[in-house]
Order: sequence, then C-alpha cells, then structure tokens
Amino acid sequence: MAATALFGPVADDLDHVERELARVARVEYAVLATLLDHLLEIRGKRIRPALVLLAAGFHDYPLDRLTKLAAAIELLHTATLVHDDLVDEAATRRGVATLQTLVSERATVLVGDYLFARSASLCTETGSVRVMRVFGDTLATICDGELRQILSHGELKTSLDDYYRRIISKTASLLRTATETGAILSGAPEWAVSALRSYGENLGIAFQIVDDVLDFTADERSLGKPVGNDLRQRTITLPTLWLLDNRPEEQAVRDVFAATEHDEEEDAIRRAVAAVLNSPAIGYSLNLARDHCARARAALDGLPDTPHRRTLLSLTEYVLERQS
Amino acid sequence: MAATALFGPVADDLDHVERELARVARVEYAVLATLLDHLLEIRGKRIRPALVLLAAGFHDYPLDRLTKLAAAIELLHTATLVHDDLVDEAATRRGVATLQTLVSERATVLVGDYLFARSASLCTETGSVRVMRVFGDTLATICDGELRQILSHGELKTSLDDYYRRIISKTASLLRTATETGAILSGAPEWAVSALRSYGENLGIAFQIVDDVLDFTADERSLGKPVGNDLRQRTITLPTLWLLDNRPEEQAVRDVFAATEHDEEEDAIRRAVAAVLNSPAIGYSLNLARDHCARARAALDGLPDTPHRRTLLSLTEYVLERQS
Repeated sequence: MAATALFGPVADDLDHVERELARVARVEYAVLATLLDHLLEIRGKRIRPALVLLAAGFHDYPLDRLTKLAAAIELLHTATLVHDDLVDEAATRRGVATLQTLVSERATVLVGDYLFARSASLCTETGSVRVMRVFGDTLATICDGELRQILSHGELKTSLDDYYRRIISKTASLLRTATETGAILSGAPEWAVSALRSYGENLGIAFQIVDDVLDFTADERSLGKPVGNDLRQRTITLPTLWLLDNRPEEQAVRDVFAATEHDEEEDAIRRAVAAVLNSPAIGYSLNLARDHCARARAALDGLPDTPHRRTLLSLTEYVLERQS
Repeated sequence: MAATALFGPVADDLDHVERELARVARVEYAVLATLLDHLLEIRGKRIRPALVLLAAGFHDYPLDRLTKLAAAIELLHTATLVHDDLVDEAATRRGVATLQTLVSERATVLVGDYLFARSASLCTETGSVRVMRVFGDTLATICDGELRQILSHGELKTSLDDYYRRIISKTASLLRTATETGAILSGAPEWAVSALRSYGENLGIAFQIVDDVLDFTADERSLGKPVGNDLRQRTITLPTLWLLDNRPEEQAVRDVFAATEHDEEEDAIRRAVAAVLNSPAIGYSLNLARDHCARARAALDGLPDTPHRRTLLSLTEYVLERQS
C-alpha cells in the first residue's frame, strides 16, 4: 500500500522526515556514509514517524520539531535493528543483506551505537525535556527487553505475562512513544496525551503479535527471512505458547530446543510449524491482536472525527491485514 | 592516591554519585544485576564525575541534578568501555575480566546498549535541554571516533591531525563535556563555561597522550593489560607516529602491521616497543602532554582562587605523573 493511502493527511510531511534521515547518512567519512545509505535502504513502511505526525495532528503542529522527533524515533528503531540482527546473526532483513554481512561485527556494533547517538542528538533538537525523558526511558525499556530475551535464551518456560512484557518492551514501547511524544510536542492536554499513548501501545502489541504469526504463516519471499525463524532463535512467541500450553503431548517444540545438529533442528522446526498451523494457535493469536486493535480504536473515542483520527483508525485494520 | 587528596572539596559529594551508580545496578533481573555489579567493580578513579562537580563549584551547586549528570557521564564512559573491549577483543580491563569473557558477545552488545540508555535517561533528569544537547552530541562524537578507528584499522598512514582528531573524540570530548555541562548546570556565565570547557578538553588530550605513552612504558601488572597493546590493535599512537616520521629506516612497526603469525607479531611488537623506548618518542609525547596541561591551567586564569580551582590545577599534575 502506498504511503498516501496508508498515512493520509501526513503522507506529504513524511518527505521532510525522509530528508532529515538522508542528512544523517551524509557524513564526510565515505565508508560510514556508504553503510548508513545501505541501512536507510532497508526501509520499512515508516510507520513510527507517521504515528508521530498523526498523533500531533489534533492540536498544534510544529512541523520542524516534529520532523526531528519523527526522524529520531525512526533512527532509534534502525539502531535497535542493527544490533538485533547482529545478536540474532541474521543474514538478511526485508530481503536486504544485514550490516554484519558487509562489514565486521565490531564495525556493526559501532554503527549501531552511532545511530543511537544521532538519534539522541536529534531528539534534543525538539527542545522538550519531557519528550527527551520519555525517549530516554523508552531506549532503556527496549534494551532491557532485548537483554531479558537474550539472557533467558533457550528457556522453554515462558508465560503469557513474559510474552507480553517482552513484546511491549521490544515493539509496543516505541510505537507508544511515537504517539505519546507526538502528542506532547503538539501541546495536547493530558487526557489526549494519555489516549494517544494508549492507542500507540495497543497498536504496537497487535503489530508484534501479527509479526509473530507471520513468522509461521508467511512465505519466505514476502517475509524476507526464513519461516520459523523465532523457533530457530529459541524464542517462544504467542502461537508456540498456545501449543505448549494446550498440546502438552506435542514434542516438536521441545525437540527444537533439544536439537544439537542442524538437520535435526530444521526437521523439528518444520514439525513445530506444521503443529502450530494445524491447531487453533494462529486463530487464538490473531484474536488477541484484534482485541488490542479494538482497544486502540476505543482509546481514540474522545478525539474529534478528523482525517488524522480516521487514518489512525484505519491503521488498526492495516496492522491486522498486512502480509509482510 | 585517595579520592580526598585527588578531588579535594568534592570528594564527599562523589559518594552521592557512587550511590546513584549503585542504583543503576539494582535491577530486578538477577542475571543483569550481577553483570552490572561486575562492571561497576572495574572502577577507575571517577575522574569524569569529579570534573562535573569541580566545574560546578564556582557558581550555584545544585547537588541533586549534578549527581544525576555526573552519574550519567560515568555510565556513558562505562558503556563505551564495554563496547570498546568487545571490539578490541580485550580479555581484561584494569586487571578484571571483561564482560564478553563472562557472557556471550551478543549479551555484551546489549548490556552496553542498556548502559547507554540508562545514561541518557539519567541525563534527562538534569532538566536542562542544553546539557542534554551537549551530551547527545558528545555521544555521537565518541561513536564517530570509534568508527573511524575501526574502519581505518590496519592503515599505517596516520597524521598528527588524525591522531588528535581521534583522541579528542575518543577521550577529550567526554572530559570536556564533564566540565562544560557541570558549568552549565551551575548557571555559570558564558565565559566561564567556555573556560571550563577548554580546561576539560586540554586535560583530556593530555590524559590520552599519557595513556598512549603508558602503553609503552608501564609494566603489564600496573597497566592491567599487556604492554604494546595499541600496536597489537594496529592503532598508531603518538610515540609510534614519532618513530614512523623520524626513523623511516626502522622496520619494526611496519613488521607488526605485516605480521600474519602470532609469534612473528609478538616479536615485531617487542622490537617496536624497544625502538620507541630507545628514541626521543616518549619525551616528545610527554612534552606535548605537558603543553596541553599548561593550556588547561591557563584556561582557568579568569576564575577565582578557590579550593575547586586549586584542585583542577593539581589534576593537571596528577595526569602527567600517573603510572596507571
């Protein structure tokens, strides 16, 4: 779907964000510039910057400062992806080679750090202490979530609470921060900041649940990475959790975690994916995602019926329907 | 030297910083808490937090916000060390095992990120947009310097300008930021902010030159890491630069860079270290360090003769005399 259809009234302003991001890659040091260009090529839908602009659209709309904020949030997202892909030893992201396949792991660590730094720098240009505070706390939350995931790596025991905590810190916290800080910069009253914050968090939870479902249901080409990748990373997501809780006799997931050889592991992953697809696990997961989209929509009840609100509402549909 | 002797009037207030740092390690997640405790054990002299407090001592002294700032700067320093040690594949730091020898490299990347995040978070608690801006820019400067170092890795061609640029971004920028932001938080007039900033930068340059000299002259035990380590990392520092420029017939450094086998490399390092020690390279380097200490002292000319100023002056002596 084109940005205009998806992001309605803020589609044009996203071009400013794009130019701000391009400025980050324009560094005098040629090798670094090439790497940053490459990273900016692996572009997603720019949903986070769009959320910043959409959330600000109900009150004042200080475009210049919003552009800095939106770019800062997209860069923070990019920085976490660089370190995530390194940590996950991923070879591709959206079908494009990840950084550590092009340069050393050492350089990849530092390019990620550099993006964190530029992101923090851009955020200070909003001039809002409150925005910076939310931003800093979110960065800490994201890292905390990643650390828990990696340090509990290989543990089969995951509860629904663990899963929620992980996806909130990993994904929903940044979507929540996008709408919350966009609202703050627009000078929105507290009830509206709170409403838009809740919208962002619930949209983010739904977004990640759908992501975790797609890891089972999508094909490798549209996903840009191999199917069953979460299991390969020993990460228990919602569909797997359903299977473990409701089909205790099914051994496939345990076999993945116990596998010591590549072929044995791939065979176990294939069986686990099939077991999930042949169970109500996907339906159950998508129902939870739908539930959070409904909560996201309900959070907007008090806001006026404007193109911005209608776009935020339609994003809750898009999140559920997306195939990649 | 004890903190009281070294840091005079702010020695007691450094305890507050220590408590603030300890709070960062007090996280509910046990594995992470252990790792953070370990990192806080590898403690240096806390020169950066002391500089924050000393620079603030000429005007207002908002202890609570200064404590947050000083802890933020020490954490930023710690975060860069975690990633540096990972990138340098160092096994020890100040004689203590580095993080990646205790947990996976993946976890080490994320612990470093977590410290960056907590550092940024603490910095926002100063409530000063200007402080946050300087802080964010410094983080970008440090990462940029590290990246240049790693991406130009193995290049023998280094100029004095390259060297200065690298040590300013790697070390002096953070000492400069410590004194500059301490001065800003104290509401110092612009001329005093600028004077204290210049003091910090020159002290930092001298500090790093002495560090680079110690890599040749110290013994392994007091250094907490092997001698000749910079050459081992293919990093050209000031003494090596002098040798390359003034003893073009000496092959040892080129042999280090050309070495493909461990024994061959270690032999070349031994010869290069000996060549440096038997030349005026160390004297030349220490003269430059002395020169920057004199500039640091001169920067304080306009400030009143207080215990804080006397302590800052004596720190320029300490930096030159330290053996580890």
